[in-house]
Amino acid sequence: MPGYPTTEGDLNVPYGQLLADVTSIFLRAGMNSADAALLAESLAIADLRGVHSHGVLRVPEYVAKLTTGGVDACGRPRIEREFGAALVVDAANAMGAVACAFAMRECIERAARFGLAAAAIHNSNHCGALFHAAMLALPHDQIGIVTTNALPTMAPYGGRDKILGINPLAMAVPAHEEPPMVLDAAFSASSHGKIRIYQQKGLPIPEGWAFDADGAPTTDAAAAIDGLLQPIGGFKGTGLSIMMGVLASLLSGAAFGTELGNMMEGPKPGRDGQFVMALHVSAFEDPAAFKLRVDGIVRQIRHSRPAPGFERCYAPGELEHILEIQYRREGIPLNAVTRAGLNRL
Amino acid sequence: MPGYPTTEGDLNVPYGQLLADVTSIFLRAGMNSADAALLAESLAIADLRGVHSHGVLRVPEYVAKLTTGGVDACGRPRIEREFGAALVVDAANAMGAVACAFAMRECIERAARFGLAAAAIHNSNHCGALFHAAMLALPHDQIGIVTTNALPTMAPYGGRDKILGINPLAMAVPAHEEPPMVLDAAFSASSHGKIRIYQQKGLPIPEGWAFDADGAPTTDAAAAIDGLLQPIGGFKGTGLSIMMGVLASLLSGAAFGTELGNMMEGPKPGRDGQFVMALHVSAFEDPAAFKLRVDGIVRQIRHSRPAPGFERCYAPGELEHILEIQYRREGIPLNAVTRAGLNRL
Repeated sequence: MPGYPTTEGDLNVPYGQLLADVTSIFLRAGMNSADAALLAESLAIADLRGVHSHGVLRVPEYVAKLTTGGVDACGRPRIEREFGAALVVDAANAMGAVACAFAMRECIERAARFGLAAAAIHNSNHCGALFHAAMLALPHDQIGIVTTNALPTMAPYGGRDKILGINPLAMAVPAHEEPPMVLDAAFSASSHGKIRIYQQKGLPIPEGWAFDADGAPTTDAAAAIDGLLQPIGGFKGTGLSIMMGVLASLLSGAAFGTELGNMMEGPKPGRDGQFVMALHVSAFEDPAAFKLRVDGIVRQIRHSRPAPGFERCYAPGELEHILEIQYRREGIPLNAVTRAGLNRL
Repeated sequence: MPGYPTTEGDLNVPYGQLLADVTSIFLRAGMNSADAALLAESLAIADLRGVHSHGVLRVPEYVAKLTTGGVDACGRPRIEREFGAALVVDAANAMGAVACAFAMRECIERAARFGLAAAAIHNSNHCGALFHAAMLALPHDQIGIVTTNALPTMAPYGGRDKILGINPLAMAVPAHEEPPMVLDAAFSASSHGKIRIYQQKGLPIPEGWAFDADGAPTTDAAAAIDGLLQPIGGFKGTGLSIMMGVLASLLSGAAFGTELGNMMEGPKPGRDGQFVMALHVSAFEDPAAFKLRVDGIVRQIRHSRPAPGFERCYAPGELEHILEIQYRREGIPLNAVTRAGLNRL
């Protein structure tokens, strides 16, 4: 199974303990207990599902944002505007995960009445792994969709100016017996974090990951960090990221692209935006029939023949689900750097 | 300007004439005048915007579907189910463009009341260029979103079985003085049509476009046609296409992937599905402010510095808009094969 690479010095930490430790850190940073637990969950669940890049590794950075970085640890998101099934949420300068969960819950309630509902969020901040909020829709037999604006790291197609974010999209789809299908993907081919690891190891990065500062393709990790992330699919990836930015920033009045800040200085607090949507399956189709068909897709993919070099195929989110089962049983492997970051706090 | 490559023997045909000619062809195929004009427009507008792969080149294939291929030239799409802002549309075995336009108009009307609205369409057929239906939302200061199921041409990530469609997504966003932003993109790196052109010319295809039948990357055009299209961004592209297929097929009870048919035999009539959504900008944000910000993004992209080998950058749909202005003035360059296809009919 293509699990996350473990390194020497990894220690397995039980999920419950990680959640409690991180919750208490956020409590001491000034959050109330419900928000501290929610924010801790949004990070710990990323580790639990093997997405360590968006996990508790981020806790020190989050604490800095909450204490000295201008984010309001006590910010209470609220509905600012309501028109039918459409909401504008003022995140009140809370962390993005708190705002997204608030907005998704409001959408879930309205989707049950209107068939679907959407919320545009402004006055927000970094929102961590988007799938956390998207998956909140699943127990309600709803499809959850979340997208966010992000700091600019890409150029428009054919360009060299760093003005577009990789503005990821997450979707969660309920299944019956199979794991839910969960996708959470940015529109860049790789991430700054991954490129940094290649740089530390002195390795060239794969072709297709990055451009240098002049907009020319590069496999030099240092040139890539000074340069630009490549989109997936050329103009398709930049086009999709622009469209996600329109939903996440322009419908709510949040910052878009360079308005949010840059990678050197970080985002301006309270300027980020997200877009959250819930689709109530039973408004369209019998949920039991729908979920059986989702099961069928998951199984068709699982039982399809692998290509050379692959052991098997996975439906979106299936591998994360398998890791979640394993890590709930054995604990989550956390490396020494991440553990030290938590211990310092 | 990177226009569409013209070939010797191209003749410029005025848009109005093309529309009238194709409308009369569809009238003779048994459609009523409103539907014939709509279907003709959905194809001619693709040529007008330089997207010839989805233009009147398809007329002979469409006539075959309408006369002997099992599609109902007189099919009247209708609302089968309504729950708040959520609709299920029975396309009544009409062509997909007819069904998508019907569904989008119903969504536009409901989005003005509910802030947003969505329709899942079944009993449908090939829907041509998705941007046609998405752009219907623009004059209403709404964002139009359309996605469709497609015949399987891809394998799941890491696989070799042809079970997934490239299930494209279109989004149209209104602007103020600038052209609207319009994206219409499938989740494959290339298309069968493009690969066929390389094969005819005896040229190798670029890396990243296709896999052979065993799921290994290939630059051999013939092996690619027998093989698989590559997704954009690896698991991201296949994941996104699966999610679009869930919206387009599972919410309405339409066929998904292999249920629809295969590339050899074509789609089964009346089994296709689409998903259409309209977002009413004023439910979220002042439309004037919103459209000014869209203008700002278009201009920021236009005035950003190009990378080596590029003349300038374009916002999504901007190049198509420039071609549309040129072709409305000069006529649409149509090649001899396409013109012969129309003349035969």
